[in-house]
Amino acid sequence: MELEAVDLKAEMQRIGARIEARLDALLAPAQGDRGRVVEAMRYSALGGGKRLRPFLVIETASLFDVPAEMAERAAAAVEMIHCYSLIHDDLPAMDDSDLRRGRPSAHKAFDEATAILAGDGLLTEAFTVLAHEATHTDPSVRCRLVAELAEAAGQAGMVGGQMMDILGEGHPMTLEQISQMESLKTGALIRVAARFGGVLASQNSDIVATLDQYGRDLGLAFQIADDLLDAEASAEDLGKPVGQDAALGKATFVSLLGAEEARRRAGDLAERAAGRMASFGPKAGALQALARYVVERKG
Amino acid sequence: MELEAVDLKAEMQRIGARIEARLDALLAPAQGDRGRVVEAMRYSALGGGKRLRPFLVIETASLFDVPAEMAERAAAAVEMIHCYSLIHDDLPAMDDSDLRRGRPSAHKAFDEATAILAGDGLLTEAFTVLAHEATHTDPSVRCRLVAELAEAAGQAGMVGGQMMDILGEGHPMTLEQISQMESLKTGALIRVAARFGGVLASQNSDIVATLDQYGRDLGLAFQIADDLLDAEASAEDLGKPVGQDAALGKATFVSLLGAEEARRRAGDLAERAAGRMASFGPKAGALQALARYVVERKG
Repeated sequence: MELEAVDLKAEMQRIGARIEARLDALLAPAQGDRGRVVEAMRYSALGGGKRLRPFLVIETASLFDVPAEMAERAAAAVEMIHCYSLIHDDLPAMDDSDLRRGRPSAHKAFDEATAILAGDGLLTEAFTVLAHEATHTDPSVRCRLVAELAEAAGQAGMVGGQMMDILGEGHPMTLEQISQMESLKTGALIRVAARFGGVLASQNSDIVATLDQYGRDLGLAFQIADDLLDAEASAEDLGKPVGQDAALGKATFVSLLGAEEARRRAGDLAERAAGRMASFGPKAGALQALARYVVERKG
Repeated sequence: MELEAVDLKAEMQRIGARIEARLDALLAPAQGDRGRVVEAMRYSALGGGKRLRPFLVIETASLFDVPAEMAERAAAAVEMIHCYSLIHDDLPAMDDSDLRRGRPSAHKAFDEATAILAGDGLLTEAFTVLAHEATHTDPSVRCRLVAELAEAAGQAGMVGGQMMDILGEGHPMTLEQISQMESLKTGALIRVAARFGGVLASQNSDIVATLDQYGRDLGLAFQIADDLLDAEASAEDLGKPVGQDAALGKATFVSLLGAEEARRRAGDLAERAAGRMASFGPKAGALQALARYVVERKG
């Protein structure tokens, strides 16, 4: 357990550096007035974040020996979608959040118009990356990556979940409603990141389903842990404002279950996620360690 | 000329109805809180617009006898991108426009958060549609459609052009700068719409280049004509506010060239676009008529 935790940290840093370099190369600066939106895209995509979703793509891809470039490109596309969603969620008309990853959020560092466009640009660029032949030699695999990412990101996934979250501010949600909202808002993208290794390697539907279930359990554990952190951690630890849920009168897993029960559920989900990876043997060690880490982290 | 104009109007109405039905089917209403964002996507995508870009996809596809369903799906994807860009451009932080197609713009009919999400949803849905096998039997063609649409929509296209347009409010642009801005902001998507017929039919690069050049000339003619309408037409004719460019102190083709020279250039571009279609014979009649129509229209 101690050894796993140390290895995981090193593995996350190693993969984080690869993703940083890949994003840096994919988002090349542009000249002229257009350069400003690319600068904002780079500001939001580079230099920070846990890179949880890229880590899932890279690690599930490594179960099946997918070449590094393909895995990194798919991982970068998923991270672009994540970063776009953070930019738009932080906007004054949405969650109105001025701080992100310990820095001013995009609309504060630039301006609202530039932030909206930077989000649009990252969302679009993700599909440019996936459709390119460098991402996979088989175009039917590339189409599947595009289709799965678009579904996870769109109105049936992340966009729909954010809509539910915003409307939930007006009428505090039940546990079932929160679970459904989170499964769309954050769960769908985490699941697709976990699936991508299997999709890149053209694995059968049973294997992709196992990866999907791992991602589902992990994503929910992650979200419950996030609620616990929002309720208990300091802004300095998190690099973003805390206590926001309570301030907005939002129901959360913690407010509905209590901290103790929420922590117990997150732990159970993490163990179940780790258990699902057992059949992949030692190669899945980092994915198992990750499941335990997401509920134990302090930021 | 008279006959062409009558035929074009009927053809545009016929294709507009097919696109309306296709978008209606692709954007099925959703239940629950998530339904609100889908409602806003439908509000913005259905019930209006000239459907210029879908018309280009359908008509260029018909040059090569592409099956109707494939052409309509590709056309609907392009129109989703166009509609998303209108929603986001109209936002208070961008052009702050309350009227669109004679109705309240999305953030007035709903609210800002819902409008941002509806734009995000339409942008994402376009790629869901293109990646689906119903759009083309050959996955390499579907990947190419995704790649070309993403490039036209992203920071190297529409997003970059909108950034240039916004920054241009601060320092009035030269003719060269306006041409470059418009070629990204509106030109890139019109060009890709014209190319799509050739891409769907796997035509050689010479033919796709001819379609591209037609789209480039048509797009620029369209934009110059738009500037003339903004300077001269009434809000009732256009279904959106007029005189906005002058009010914002923006340089336009009309302010830089004068109305007479702008009208002459638009006419020349339209004739050149029409001429490029001559080699395709009678099947290209509607595309030729369209080129002339965009500079003669009153709204």
